[in-house]
Amino acid sequence: MTAVESVGEFRFECGESVDDLRLAYETYGGFDGDNAVLVCHALTGSQHVSNAPRSEDHDADAVDGSDAGDADTGTGVQTAGQARAWWDDVVGPGKAIDTTEYYVVCVNVPGSCYGSSGPPAGGPDGEPWGTDFPPVTVGDWTRAQRRLLDRLGVGRLHAVVGGSVGGMNALDWAKRFPDDVRRVAAVATAARLDTQCLSLDAIARRAITTDPNWNGGDYYGADRPNPDDGLAQARRIGHVMYLSKASMGRKFGRRAAGRGAFGDAPADPTDRFFPYREVESYLDYNADSFTSRFDANSYLYLTRAMDEYDLSAGYGSDAEALAAFEGEMLALSFTGDWHFTVEQARALADAARDVDVPTAHHVVESDHGHDAFLVEPESVGPPLRDFLADGVDGRAVRDEGDARDESDGSGSHSGGPDRAPVHASLFPG
Amino acid sequence: MTAVESVGEFRFECGESVDDLRLAYETYGGFDGDNAVLVCHALTGSQHVSNAPRSEDHDADAVDGSDAGDADTGTGVQTAGQARAWWDDVVGPGKAIDTTEYYVVCVNVPGSCYGSSGPPAGGPDGEPWGTDFPPVTVGDWTRAQRRLLDRLGVGRLHAVVGGSVGGMNALDWAKRFPDDVRRVAAVATAARLDTQCLSLDAIARRAITTDPNWNGGDYYGADRPNPDDGLAQARRIGHVMYLSKASMGRKFGRRAAGRGAFGDAPADPTDRFFPYREVESYLDYNADSFTSRFDANSYLYLTRAMDEYDLSAGYGSDAEALAAFEGEMLALSFTGDWHFTVEQARALADAARDVDVPTAHHVVESDHGHDAFLVEPESVGPPLRDFLADGVDGRAVRDEGDARDESDGSGSHSGGPDRAPVHASLFPG
Repeated sequence: MTAVESVGEFRFECGESVDDLRLAYETYGGFDGDNAVLVCHALTGSQHVSNAPRSEDHDADAVDGSDAGDADTGTGVQTAGQARAWWDDVVGPGKAIDTTEYYVVCVNVPGSCYGSSGPPAGGPDGEPWGTDFPPVTVGDWTRAQRRLLDRLGVGRLHAVVGGSVGGMNALDWAKRFPDDVRRVAAVATAARLDTQCLSLDAIARRAITTDPNWNGGDYYGADRPNPDDGLAQARRIGHVMYLSKASMGRKFGRRAAGRGAFGDAPADPTDRFFPYREVESYLDYNADSFTSRFDANSYLYLTRAMDEYDLSAGYGSDAEALAAFEGEMLALSFTGDWHFTVEQARALADAARDVDVPTAHHVVESDHGHDAFLVEPESVGPPLRDFLADGVDGRAVRDEGDARDESDGSGSHSGGPDRAPVHASLFPG
Repeated sequence: MTAVESVGEFRFECGESVDDLRLAYETYGGFDGDNAVLVCHALTGSQHVSNAPRSEDHDADAVDGSDAGDADTGTGVQTAGQARAWWDDVVGPGKAIDTTEYYVVCVNVPGSCYGSSGPPAGGPDGEPWGTDFPPVTVGDWTRAQRRLLDRLGVGRLHAVVGGSVGGMNALDWAKRFPDDVRRVAAVATAARLDTQCLSLDAIARRAITTDPNWNGGDYYGADRPNPDDGLAQARRIGHVMYLSKASMGRKFGRRAAGRGAFGDAPADPTDRFFPYREVESYLDYNADSFTSRFDANSYLYLTRAMDEYDLSAGYGSDAEALAAFEGEMLALSFTGDWHFTVEQARALADAARDVDVPTAHHVVESDHGHDAFLVEPESVGPPLRDFLADGVDGRAVRDEGDARDESDGSGSHSGGPDRAPVHASLFPG
C-alpha cells in the first residue's frame, strides 16, 4: 500500500517552488523511536522496495499501490508497472534489512512518476505539470525526505541505505543532515558521475528530446502519443551501462534470436541478410516494458539530477563535505560495475576516512555489472545486515584494506590498496 | 586524386548482385611488382589515407577527390568532407608505411559513401540505390579489393594493414586469399565483435531507423531532409566507444561549456537549471560535422558488416580459418581500447600461433581508447614500419610474450601471458 503525503510548499534548489509537494512512500515494520531506516531508490525505482507487510497507515492519503499512479498523476503512466518490489530479496522480515527489526521507509523522489509530484503528476490546474515542473536535484530529494520523515515523527535515522543514484541520495544525507543519521550505506555509487557516464546520459536524453512525439515535453493526454521510441532508446543505452561486458557476453554471445522474436522493431531493409540477435531482442523487450512503466519527462529530470550531483558541491572537497558527519559509512562496490566503479568507491571511502568517518569499503567480486546490487542479494545482504547492526565492525563487513594481512587472498574483496587495484583499470588510467 | 574503377558484375555474399561494381581508390608510390601494401580503412574512413603524392593514374576514371562523391553519388553527401587524410602521420614519404618504398593502395569499401558503389551512389537507373543496394560483408570488401588489385596488376601483396573493422578486413585477407599476402597487420581489431559492442551498434542503427526522416532509407534528393538527428545520435554513441573512460575524464571532466556553445541542440526545458557540458558540446560538434560527411544508410550497412564479421565463420575456429596462411601476423592492441580489447587481440594472436603463423602481439600502453591507433602515430608507426620490413623479427615489434624474460618490466607492452593480463579486466570476467 502506497501512501501519499502532502508536505506543503516546497522550494527547490533551482529557486522555483510548488505550493504543495506530494510524496508517495511506503513503510514497513514498526517504529520504536530509534529504528528507522530510509531506503533510497535508484533512477527508475519506486517507493515499492519490498513485498513485506506494510506498517500501519499514517495520517495520509492511503491509496492502493496499483492505482497510485493513475489516481495521482492523471496520466496513463502505469505505475502498476512498478509492482515488482525492487529489493524484495534484501528488505523484509528476516532479510538483511529486517522489517521485523527496523522501520523501513522508502519515498518516491520528486520528479519521478510513481505518485510523487513530478512532470506527469497533476499541477495546480489539475493538468500534468510537464516540463513546467521545477528541475530537481538529489539535494531536493533529501530535503523532501526530511520533510516527510518529520510528518512521520522520525527524527534521527538509524541508517540511510541507497544504491546507484540512491547511493548519492544516501551520501547527501551525511552531508546535508549530518546529525540525523547514524549509518550511511552507499551501494554501487560515487561522489559524482564520471565523464563517460555523463556523456551516455546526455545521449539518452537527446534520444527523448529528438523524438517528435516528445513535443517539447507536452505529450500528455489520451489523444497524444508518448515519445516511446526515444524513451526506449534511452533505456537501451542505460541497460548497456548496467551490465558488464563479461556478463553480456556470457548471457547472449552473438546468438541470433528467432526472426520476429520482438515484433515491434522498425522494418530495416538492411536486416534482410543479417540476424536479429538475442541481445538486441533482450534490450528491445526490456525497453518496451520500460516505456509502459516510466515517463519520458521524468527520465529527463532524474538523469539530470544524477548527472548534476557532486558530493563536494559547496565544499572544497568530498572529505570536507563529509566532515560534519559523525556516523559510520559503508561503501559497497562491485568489480564488474563500470557505471560506478570500484575506484570511485575507493576514492569516496578515502575521503570519508580523511575526516575520521569510520568507513569500510567492501568490494564484491562480481561480473554482473552495475546491476549486481539488485541481482546479487547473497553478496549485498550480509554486509548490509551486519553494518546496520554493528557498523563497520559488523562481522560480514569487509574493508578492502583488510586484505593486506591475508596471505590466502580469499574473501570478497579484490585486493588491498597496496596491490594494483584489479578494477582501477576497468577503464585504464 | 581519387580514381574510380569499374570492376564489373559482382555477386555479394548475400546472393544479390550488381551489374557494375565501382570502387573508389587511391594509390601512392610506385609499384615494382613486389611492394604493394593494401591499407584497409575503418568504419567511416575513406580511400584518402594520406596526403602523400599519388601514383600515376591507372586506366580508370580519375576524378578530383573533392568532387568524387557528388559526381558519383548524385547526392548531397559531401565526400569533400573526407579530405582529411585519416592516417597521414603513418602513410607517406619517409613515414612508417613509406610511400617511397611501398606501393600503397586504399579502397573505399562497397557500401560506403566516398565514391564506391553503395546506398547513396547511383544505381542502374541513375537514382541512388538506397536500401536496394545489396547488404555487404567484410568478405565482400576483400573480394572487391582482390578484383581491383587484379585490374591494377597487383598479384601478391607484400602486406595488408588495417585498423578497427579495417583490421577485420586485413584478417579476412589471410583467411580468404592466404597465398596472396605476405604480412598481415591487424591493428586495434578482433576476430569478432563482442556482445557489448554489438548492442551499442544495434542501438546506433535504431537511432537512424527511428528518425522519421530516414523514411525507410528513402531520403535522397534535394527536397528531402536527411536523417541527421538519427545519424548524429549514432555517431555520439560511436564516439563514446572510441574513447576511454580515462581520456574522457582527463579531457573534459565535468566542466560546463558556455551556453549555446553548440546552437543546434534541441530546446530542452529541463536544461534551464543545468549546464551544457563540454563533453556534450564536443560530441555534438563532432556529430554535426559527421552528418555532413557521411551517409545514414551507409552507416547501417557498414556497422552490419562489422557486426557480422566472424573470422571463424566457415571454419571450426579462428585458428582453422588462419591455417592456410603462410605469412606472418602482427596484432597491435591498445590497453585503453574497450571497443577492441587487448584480450581479444591476445586470443587472435594465440589462434594464429596455434596454426604456426609467426605472430607478434604488440601491446601499446595507452589510455586513448580505440582512437589510439589513429592519434598515436608515435606508438603505431615503429612496429608497423619494422613489421613491414622484417616481419615479426622487426626491431620495434614487441611480442607481449617477450616480457617474461625481462626483469625491468620496461617496454611498450603490458605484461607477459604468465602475469595477470592488466587489461583482461577491462570488463572483468
